[in-house]
Amino acid sequence: MDVTAIIPVSGIFALLFVAYLTWSIFKMDRGTADMQNVADAIREGAYAFLRRQYGTIMTLAVVVAVLLYFVTSKQTVGPAGKQVVIGYRTALAFFLGATCSAIAGFIGMYVAVNSNIRAAAGALRSFPDSLKASFRGGAVTGLAVTALSLLGVWGLFTAYGGRTNPEIAPLLIVGYGFGASFVALFAQLGGGIYTKAADVGADIVGKVEAGIPEDDPRNPAVVADLVGDNVGDCAGRGADLFESTAAENIGAMVLGIALYPVFGVNGLLFPLVARAFGIIASIIGIMCVRGKENEDPMWALNRGYFVTTLFCVIFLYYVVNNMLTGVNPETGQAIKSMNFFWCAIIGVALSYIFVLLTQYYTDIHFRPVKEIAKACTTGPATTIIQGTAVGMESVALPVIFISAAIYGAYTLGATSGLGAEGGLYGTAVATMGMLSTCAFILAMDTFGPITDNAGGIAEMSGAPETVRLRTDRLDACGNTCKALTKGYAIGSAALATFLLFRAYLDEVVIKVQALPAEKIAANPELQMIGKHLPVDIGNVKVFIGAFVALMLVFLFSSTAIRAVGNAAQSVIIEVRRQFREIPGLMEGKAKPEYGRCVDIVTARALKEMVLPGMLVVVTPILVGILLGPAAAAAFLMVGTIGGVVVALYLNNGGGAWDNAKKLIELGHYGGKGSEAHAAGVVGDTVGDPFKDTAGPSLHVLVKLISTITLVLVGSFFMFI
Amino acid sequence: MDVTAIIPVSGIFALLFVAYLTWSIFKMDRGTADMQNVADAIREGAYAFLRRQYGTIMTLAVVVAVLLYFVTSKQTVGPAGKQVVIGYRTALAFFLGATCSAIAGFIGMYVAVNSNIRAAAGALRSFPDSLKASFRGGAVTGLAVTALSLLGVWGLFTAYGGRTNPEIAPLLIVGYGFGASFVALFAQLGGGIYTKAADVGADIVGKVEAGIPEDDPRNPAVVADLVGDNVGDCAGRGADLFESTAAENIGAMVLGIALYPVFGVNGLLFPLVARAFGIIASIIGIMCVRGKENEDPMWALNRGYFVTTLFCVIFLYYVVNNMLTGVNPETGQAIKSMNFFWCAIIGVALSYIFVLLTQYYTDIHFRPVKEIAKACTTGPATTIIQGTAVGMESVALPVIFISAAIYGAYTLGATSGLGAEGGLYGTAVATMGMLSTCAFILAMDTFGPITDNAGGIAEMSGAPETVRLRTDRLDACGNTCKALTKGYAIGSAALATFLLFRAYLDEVVIKVQALPAEKIAANPELQMIGKHLPVDIGNVKVFIGAFVALMLVFLFSSTAIRAVGNAAQSVIIEVRRQFREIPGLMEGKAKPEYGRCVDIVTARALKEMVLPGMLVVVTPILVGILLGPAAAAAFLMVGTIGGVVVALYLNNGGGAWDNAKKLIELGHYGGKGSEAHAAGVVGDTVGDPFKDTAGPSLHVLVKLISTITLVLVGSFFMFI
Repeated sequence: MDVTAIIPVSGIFALLFVAYLTWSIFKMDRGTADMQNVADAIREGAYAFLRRQYGTIMTLAVVVAVLLYFVTSKQTVGPAGKQVVIGYRTALAFFLGATCSAIAGFIGMYVAVNSNIRAAAGALRSFPDSLKASFRGGAVTGLAVTALSLLGVWGLFTAYGGRTNPEIAPLLIVGYGFGASFVALFAQLGGGIYTKAADVGADIVGKVEAGIPEDDPRNPAVVADLVGDNVGDCAGRGADLFESTAAENIGAMVLGIALYPVFGVNGLLFPLVARAFGIIASIIGIMCVRGKENEDPMWALNRGYFVTTLFCVIFLYYVVNNMLTGVNPETGQAIKSMNFFWCAIIGVALSYIFVLLTQYYTDIHFRPVKEIAKACTTGPATTIIQGTAVGMESVALPVIFISAAIYGAYTLGATSGLGAEGGLYGTAVATMGMLSTCAFILAMDTFGPITDNAGGIAEMSGAPETVRLRTDRLDACGNTCKALTKGYAIGSAALATFLLFRAYLDEVVIKVQALPAEKIAANPELQMIGKHLPVDIGNVKVFIGAFVALMLVFLFSSTAIRAVGNAAQSVIIEVRRQFREIPGLMEGKAKPEYGRCVDIVTARALKEMVLPGMLVVVTPILVGILLGPAAAAAFLMVGTIGGVVVALYLNNGGGAWDNAKKLIELGHYGGKGSEAHAAGVVGDTVGDPFKDTAGPSLHVLVKLISTITLVLVGSFFMFI
Repeated sequence: MDVTAIIPVSGIFALLFVAYLTWSIFKMDRGTADMQNVADAIREGAYAFLRRQYGTIMTLAVVVAVLLYFVTSKQTVGPAGKQVVIGYRTALAFFLGATCSAIAGFIGMYVAVNSNIRAAAGALRSFPDSLKASFRGGAVTGLAVTALSLLGVWGLFTAYGGRTNPEIAPLLIVGYGFGASFVALFAQLGGGIYTKAADVGADIVGKVEAGIPEDDPRNPAVVADLVGDNVGDCAGRGADLFESTAAENIGAMVLGIALYPVFGVNGLLFPLVARAFGIIASIIGIMCVRGKENEDPMWALNRGYFVTTLFCVIFLYYVVNNMLTGVNPETGQAIKSMNFFWCAIIGVALSYIFVLLTQYYTDIHFRPVKEIAKACTTGPATTIIQGTAVGMESVALPVIFISAAIYGAYTLGATSGLGAEGGLYGTAVATMGMLSTCAFILAMDTFGPITDNAGGIAEMSGAPETVRLRTDRLDACGNTCKALTKGYAIGSAALATFLLFRAYLDEVVIKVQALPAEKIAANPELQMIGKHLPVDIGNVKVFIGAFVALMLVFLFSSTAIRAVGNAAQSVIIEVRRQFREIPGLMEGKAKPEYGRCVDIVTARALKEMVLPGMLVVVTPILVGILLGPAAAAAFLMVGTIGGVVVALYLNNGGGAWDNAKKLIELGHYGGKGSEAHAAGVVGDTVGDPFKDTAGPSLHVLVKLISTITLVLVGSFFMFI
């Protein structure tokens, strides 16, 4: 049997498994009436936000799809002599990518807001029941996202003639990646702004001004805060990883074109097959996660992760040795397939290294967080100075390991018998290795907000102490998961930067080689773009492209951070109003109007997401059209590097501040209520928009600028 | 008469004028005995720091010079067929650059610590007397620095055969720029750490904990704080601008080599002639600065700046039309010299634009600072979030203007009849235009710390109210000057990035063209480095070089910011100890031990400057040797871009926080003593290491990595 048959089989099997998991979750009981009231409010708020957000996003997506049709339909793609006219295909692929991403996000959300109540209700009975409901909820997102992404890319590849015209099809489906990242950017931005605006607003008025505990039902913003966990972490992160897997698969397929003479269609489909096996490994891993009443739930999750990784390695060995074999037609030598297996192992190892590095910089047991906590004792100023220093420092080791991984994978690929093109393919294989465990990781990631919600529901419904102890244990585990998976997300984005950047360069080379000879002869810039696209980095336009890219990263971060501040301001005003105007609220005699806070933060978050989003879409297009394809290449290189570096700074700085506060709350450096604790709260609040809005949105930015330039490269030759 | 004779004439005349100014300052009276006591303490502290700092730096410099001799002495430079062996020349140039930079820094400091007391004493009589002493002190630094830099470059160029071998001499003197930037980095870092550690330490214990005013003589760290203004702002900034002018002159001369067939030696000496006339224009401007008792001193300074600019424009017109004329030997057409004049005007205009942009982002009259001040009302967390957003946003407009300036100058140069090489020379001419007013700007810059010191001396010596009102007026004017000149410094660094980056590329091309043909034939990487050095930016090594560059910028900033925190910690402990152990200190009956604080912060600052400094020296060398000249080019491009962008973020963010606090102190948003003011103080303290340590040090980093790679490019072919 053809090994590539695993692609649809695995995708469909995963969706069936998702249906089974969903059914099994819905079968569980929904606890007390109080719990149901809270959960209903969260669910309605989340649906309301998602409806309006998707309304806005899909309107924008339709506009972009139409524009894309007019821009690209007359352009051609493909190598010299084999070009085809794009027609409706890029625009349709874009629209499908956007739609599938929205569907994946919706499924994740839908299951999450129905799992949270089951997790809370499960805690009424036993800890394993609670863990089961929440982890299965997470698993639905993880599997739905990866399976839909896989089926979408494979379906389009097949529909656009992948079997008959395999060297061209990958270039026709890049629109799918663009559509997915387009939705992901707005989903992550809107969700990220929502969740942090609600969080900051609820904390500042509730905890700081009124002195009531977190998740207290008297706080009018508490439901909005719980809704935020779903729309930011579930829907936002789901869309993010949907586009990661889609964009990186497509990028790797584009790189595979250069090796078509060696590997044939296998080189193009290898990324999808690796992903398909990764999904199966993740399903096996997910089935291994079973909690015990008296065991740290992290053990259960780590067991599952370990099993997933083990099967991924075994599958990768099998797939590489089946698909990446052949003979170099130029030298007549057999390809050393094992080299590519080791590339995949580099990717798997890198995902572990990134998790460890994230832990080092953000965990309470290590130097960085302790340093910040100590600085808290001399006030908020030193807290911020130290946290900034930690965040900036935390960039170094990840960059060194990423560099080593890219260099190692390149060298292994290049010495497989395929030279430079094999080297580039080696880096793609490493990325596939890293992403093979993606479905399981995403399950762990979405598990976090579900446990957070379960805790909130238990707290707000006044559940008994034993129940709350169980949900607290679950919540602590969920927080650890969220931190670790964030390390994984940025690591895979960083590794993918080179992949996507190279895919763009390859497409430019194909494009130039297919131009009419007289156009090339008349233009020295085009002459230089030979087989390896040597860009004249001393050219002013190239330099300016690079300069503007780093500027964009900073300007985007600025608008994202400011958006949280603006939206939080609206929440603060509304919460203060309710405390003032609703009689008996503070005494618990009257109920706050949760719905108004949800409405306000929904409207503000959607308004605030437009400016930063459009900035990221428009800038690369302007650079490409005005300054040409070489400047766009430099833009892409510096934009991806800058996005990763600044995201590391923001994510790790924010994470470290968060845990420095937790370390103080555990009784160190003065403990709760001390001056140091107050300073720690300042650091934590500053870190919120860093680590949960700007940082994760930068992950998407990195991939969006790649897919945009991949799609629009045909228009970049207008003025050169 | 040969117009190039102006170079030594102007340099020597400037030094004579410096001697006259110094004499005129020393002739002024030194005020009361109380004033003299304070001034003596500051002077001794400053000398002690400078002695130890220069001891450390010159030791390092000798070690580097010796290493440089062993590495470079056997290498050759110059175009194919005309190469010469470097021998002792690069190492000697390095040593001379380091020594001249140290001398320039020392002169500036020496005059500054003797002007501060004259400015304070002058305020006893009249405001113009006080302004005269402080501005003349600043003028000494401005003129000494630019004149020494000019004479050094010109002297070495002549000594290394500039008249007989003009195409090679610029390549032999790059070591001078390296030496200058080597000293500048440590001077700026050490001084920046010193001044902010003393400032933060004095403020935290004095203002916050003990509740005594700024510059109160009971504070044991107050003398260290005043010493810091001299060693950080005078000596540090002096060394910074010394290396700016040296490195940029040399870079422009390297670019001039390509146009040697057209302009002859004039193209190489134009940068020096432009600088020489700029010094004369600055002297005229300096002589125009005369204060009046009832006039805002900014008017006097602006008058002087305007006169300087006017004469610069006239001189540039004359010089361009005299030197940059000729016939393109390939086309036989006459060069359009006026195009280069307009390039110079672009540079002059850009310096004004940068001053305006800096003002917009850091002045109390505009949106950004008001926004931060408003955020102060909701506490320190929102203050920091808003300030971060402002700092990140402030990157955008400068980058756009820099890009437009580079593009405009390039286009003007390229259409002058000289094609791409003319375009590059156009960007060099724009840089020369921007730097033509440098001596005057530096005079304004150094004027700032002298006025600051004069105010401190008046305060600590208990001078009468009228005197302190005069020094306060002077101090306010000095603060404005410091802020504006910082905009100029980063603007010129940003414009120079492209110049220095291009000079490196040109040198690589010369180097490759001179390699033996069989070596080139055997290496595809060398083959690609043709006339325009098209770097394969898709190559892993190039990508890694770029990645590591941005990492270095963040890691360096982290270590610099942390160094301030560490050094401040030592000051805090010592000040607390003195408050505790010296009886009668708080009642003013006993004197604090100022000297101990000075000693402690001296030792710590020197210790803390070594790690970040070495990082910047070692990383580019490692990248160049391990990854080759193309990777080093990408390193240089991203390092300079990243350095400028992060410096803008840190400088403007820090400046905006500073003034948001001042806006509150002026009575807005709650005024002094309010919650908002406390939050404003937090922002200001966070901004201190941003804007006065890490930011200015990044200016130097940008130029140091350029000069290092220029000097060591011969060693970058080892492994390729």
